[in-house]
Amino acid sequence: MDEDTGALPPKHQFSEWYNDILWRAEIMDVRYPVKGLYVWYPYGFAIRKNVYQQLRNLLDRDHQEALFPLLIPEQEFMKEAEHIKGFEDEVYWVTHGGTTPLDVKLALRPTSETAIYPMYALWIRSHADLPLKIYQIVNTFRYETKHTRPLIRLREITSFKEAHTVHATWEEANKQVEDAINRYQEFYDGLCIPVLISRRPDWDKFPGADYTIAVDTIMPDGRSLQIGTVHHLGDHFSKTFAIQYEDKNGEQQFAHQTCYGISERSIAALISLHGDDKGLILPPIIAPIQMVIVPIMIGNRHEDVIKSAKDLENELLKMGFRTKLDTREIRPGAKYYWWELRGVPLRLELGPRDIDSGKVMAVKRTGEKVALERSDIKAGINRILAEISNVMRQNAKEHLKNRLCTVKSIEGLNAALNEGKVAVVHWCDERMCGDALEERSNATILGTDVKSAYIPRTNGECIICGKKGKVTLVGRAY
Amino acid sequence: MDEDTGALPPKHQFSEWYNDILWRAEIMDVRYPVKGLYVWYPYGFAIRKNVYQQLRNLLDRDHQEALFPLLIPEQEFMKEAEHIKGFEDEVYWVTHGGTTPLDVKLALRPTSETAIYPMYALWIRSHADLPLKIYQIVNTFRYETKHTRPLIRLREITSFKEAHTVHATWEEANKQVEDAINRYQEFYDGLCIPVLISRRPDWDKFPGADYTIAVDTIMPDGRSLQIGTVHHLGDHFSKTFAIQYEDKNGEQQFAHQTCYGISERSIAALISLHGDDKGLILPPIIAPIQMVIVPIMIGNRHEDVIKSAKDLENELLKMGFRTKLDTREIRPGAKYYWWELRGVPLRLELGPRDIDSGKVMAVKRTGEKVALERSDIKAGINRILAEISNVMRQNAKEHLKNRLCTVKSIEGLNAALNEGKVAVVHWCDERMCGDALEERSNATILGTDVKSAYIPRTNGECIICGKKGKVTLVGRAY
Repeated sequence: MDEDTGALPPKHQFSEWYNDILWRAEIMDVRYPVKGLYVWYPYGFAIRKNVYQQLRNLLDRDHQEALFPLLIPEQEFMKEAEHIKGFEDEVYWVTHGGTTPLDVKLALRPTSETAIYPMYALWIRSHADLPLKIYQIVNTFRYETKHTRPLIRLREITSFKEAHTVHATWEEANKQVEDAINRYQEFYDGLCIPVLISRRPDWDKFPGADYTIAVDTIMPDGRSLQIGTVHHLGDHFSKTFAIQYEDKNGEQQFAHQTCYGISERSIAALISLHGDDKGLILPPIIAPIQMVIVPIMIGNRHEDVIKSAKDLENELLKMGFRTKLDTREIRPGAKYYWWELRGVPLRLELGPRDIDSGKVMAVKRTGEKVALERSDIKAGINRILAEISNVMRQNAKEHLKNRLCTVKSIEGLNAALNEGKVAVVHWCDERMCGDALEERSNATILGTDVKSAYIPRTNGECIICGKKGKVTLVGRAY
Repeated sequence: MDEDTGALPPKHQFSEWYNDILWRAEIMDVRYPVKGLYVWYPYGFAIRKNVYQQLRNLLDRDHQEALFPLLIPEQEFMKEAEHIKGFEDEVYWVTHGGTTPLDVKLALRPTSETAIYPMYALWIRSHADLPLKIYQIVNTFRYETKHTRPLIRLREITSFKEAHTVHATWEEANKQVEDAINRYQEFYDGLCIPVLISRRPDWDKFPGADYTIAVDTIMPDGRSLQIGTVHHLGDHFSKTFAIQYEDKNGEQQFAHQTCYGISERSIAALISLHGDDKGLILPPIIAPIQMVIVPIMIGNRHEDVIKSAKDLENELLKMGFRTKLDTREIRPGAKYYWWELRGVPLRLELGPRDIDSGKVMAVKRTGEKVALERSDIKAGINRILAEISNVMRQNAKEHLKNRLCTVKSIEGLNAALNEGKVAVVHWCDERMCGDALEERSNATILGTDVKSAYIPRTNGECIICGKKGKVTLVGRAY
């Protein structure tokens, strides 16, 4: 919706590329007149819809979607001591209705534990009500004082999927944590995004949790991006909010809980990991337009070509492919540029010669041009879309692998970080060494208990004190 | 999720029935600890999802979905004088981020004109950018001081679909108003809800609009419920927000705009118009569960019946019917009661005799039991679902017709209103007579220029002054 002036910066200038692609590909408009709030353009919103549909498909297997209010009364919000400490600096407060001061201040949810759990206390009576697995997709708010960035650090997180489960025992909640991690890996695998799973250090866990497992990926500039978290809440919140159930022996027990969330950072990762110098590259399963048909007008067979292209479009639409026919009166090259920028995974070219020979030329956004049989177009396209997904997944995995570096010393650690890598070190798990490590590297301990195909579980000496240490990820994080 | 104690009040005690059905059928929980904020149970949320999917399907034909921020800075919100006057008493204000007072107060959107139109001013440059048709589905907020009521009068409207269109001329915007009204009628026809279309009196139009067309229905207690509005905004907002385009002659022109919205009141109407003494009745297109299979265990063919029921369930699911098999170990009667309460449109009973004779017994939620051929189940079910929709639509139309009453005098008007009717009068369209009419009837002028199959356009004398008047709807409104 803006004039297309100048060119997209090259991807290796990542920060400039990222800012530019958002408006050039019509994902987000950053010109909204409040810091940290952004507008989803229709095209960006269509991507968001498809991404969150994937998430819904995964959760709807055994979760239920619900919806809780945005506004949390101060007294509920202030009930859990750890939780308040974690959020009090960044909560927006509603203090007035019209010109009238409110009796009770209302917080805009930064996350919904304190909105949901008073209701869970009413809903749960007996062991037969457990497990309870509910999620919602909502807008949440953080008064960020740091530098804000679209899709990454926002004051209105427009698309927070948060699940909240309740279980009889700590162990059952623990199993749910495992299950949620697997589900998140499946989700990101669908988006062709490789992830690193690790356990956040204790000082960095969710306020009020027993422990936090994080899902990170590595951005093109080598900084890590947290794109999901799973928290074991133990019985902290159930004790605060009186979430109790009657067990089989008729005795009242406190429940055990987990919660886990994914925000529009999933889309930041999607854009950043797959894009290239030409623009976005979208995985076929989430692309709002999976294929664009560009009619090639040569000679005097204009009408013939348009008719064939329309027939092809209708056929593909009927097969369920999200297809767009581009009949604008501009050069084919300009069309290629336009759709490549927007990440459409497949371009189909159709000219007089193709029509005569019963072919359709298919050009993958990931490179490579092949001729498809017109008479067997469905199979051909299904094959080629699968190939595109595979290449995207493979490229992203390569990137991740190349961005990991095992180091043995603080000097090596700093060198790796400065080269834009996430470092694999050993650390003794003690806070004092952790603080020293972070201070001396100007980086963050992402976590221990790492789950990744690229990082073997090894023994080694703590990079600070030399005592026995475990594999630990260290990175400069967004 | 609550114990099922006592019975649903009869429908003719509408207010009690409405409050009760919301929790008994697990639509909404009203126990959230802030007045006017409610929680969507999963079952209610599933209904909401299907209803809004219908709305999306209608709009996606030629609108685009986008998403704009919730928070509107004070200076933008205060730009349009009429608009402010209309909303200033009911806007929630965010004044603090953490413990820091904000430099600029932020309004929680009561509606999004002032969030969207500054962006439109950036997006629209030329006549080629028009028409622009965008919608979003969001939460909006009103600090209601009147009695709040779930789905009807809320402080957080969780499900506001608002469309905002931009056109070159006043006439084109006027056509869009027509189009939106037709679209809304189609939407409500899909929900089997008959509506009354009328033009709100000038003093009751949207703040900042040229005129407002309203979509009302009549609730079981005879009070009218506004379930949609369409506004012609003229160029008021485009002049305030500088939404200009270059016309074909290269000259700058102010654009013309419309906006139109539907909220979760659509679901209040759905529940209220179709339900009966037994509970909800949901139209098949939006029912989260369209049919429940109840296996009838008689004699010793338990396994046989369960297997047949499972086969039937799988077959129906594959055909795309939203089907549920109820194998709980409770009496069939208890199952009937359970699913009737939740409004499932069709119950399929399957016992040994049915299996032997190749039949499935189908019981419509609207009454009537018929045997379907097991071998031709798809056609049978499609037919019966269509019959259910037709009966629902017909019943609702009858209700609406019976709730309308033409009157000629203030005494007749009061009598009709007291009997729970919406009255059809003639009125001269003058404010002074309008005020007198409303005062002397303790009711509201819903509108003129009425579009309804049940109300002929007639000439008559103004019920107050006796001068020439037009057909006017008068009701006691929610």
